[in-house]
Amino acid sequence: MSDSNYQNLLKQLQQTWHQTIPVSEFMQVAPLAFDGDTFEVSAPMEPNINLHNTMFAGSIYTLMTLTGWGMLWLQQKLAEQEGDIVLADANVRYIAPIDIQPVAKVCWPQVDLAKLAQGRRVKVRLEVELYCRDKLCASFSGLYVSMGN
Amino acid sequence: MSDSNYQNLLKQLQQTWHQTIPVSEFMQVAPLAFDGDTFEVSAPMEPNINLHNTMFAGSIYTLMTLTGWGMLWLQQKLAEQEGDIVLADANVRYIAPIDIQPVAKVCWPQVDLAKLAQGRRVKVRLEVELYCRDKLCASFSGLYVSMGN
Repeated sequence: MSDSNYQNLLKQLQQTWHQTIPVSEFMQVAPLAFDGDTFEVSAPMEPNINLHNTMFAGSIYTLMTLTGWGMLWLQQKLAEQEGDIVLADANVRYIAPIDIQPVAKVCWPQVDLAKLAQGRRVKVRLEVELYCRDKLCASFSGLYVSMGN
Repeated sequence: MSDSNYQNLLKQLQQTWHQTIPVSEFMQVAPLAFDGDTFEVSAPMEPNINLHNTMFAGSIYTLMTLTGWGMLWLQQKLAEQEGDIVLADANVRYIAPIDIQPVAKVCWPQVDLAKLAQGRRVKVRLEVELYCRDKLCASFSGLYVSMGN
């Protein structure tokens, strides 16, 4: 798939988020980059600060949750599969305070999504890492479930 | 402490949240009840929906995170202790979709906060449960750390 096709998918994803999840629009969550295997997402500091003037724990978690959800959404588009994606459980570890705009990164573990076409469900555990420049500031592990139609 | 003192603390807590954490104001997170041992917090559906028209996973997590944080903040006020509270790690489990306004509940595990006065830190693991009417819809376990001044 070409770069411009990837860019179109990222635009569609951002619209889906902002139009259907009001918190994601308030947080200004924005897809940054996608190459088929890795996906990066960011959000600015201003709407996401806490009383220590660092990024709020809830915003950090939401940014990482959407990064994982978005990766599965993008992979479904690439595989021409449809499924309703939900998060079943997650762990998050806060490693360092975040005082500049961070980038959340996730790699695709090459899970086969073909079962969705048979109306079956697919479970995918995704590991998301949050960086400020090159420093790892938070890590997230989430189990996503997609239900084929 | 009297009920009206508890009510004053809840007002202070809501102001602290809404004035210093913009996401908490957008989500309309509101303390409901506190009796010294248990604390309840809620948020309306409207700003917190997702594309399935149920409560967004990120909002559910943030509501539960703030419930735990608020419990430690309230206990510090009762104990006349000061400390900067941060979340170190958390696990969340999504049990059922949330389609009516939920209530997050937490009990205080009777941790001694006196060390804060010596400038030392206190770690408290808090278990928060989220109910829709009487149905448990999500559970959260968070390790909070407060640093005495």
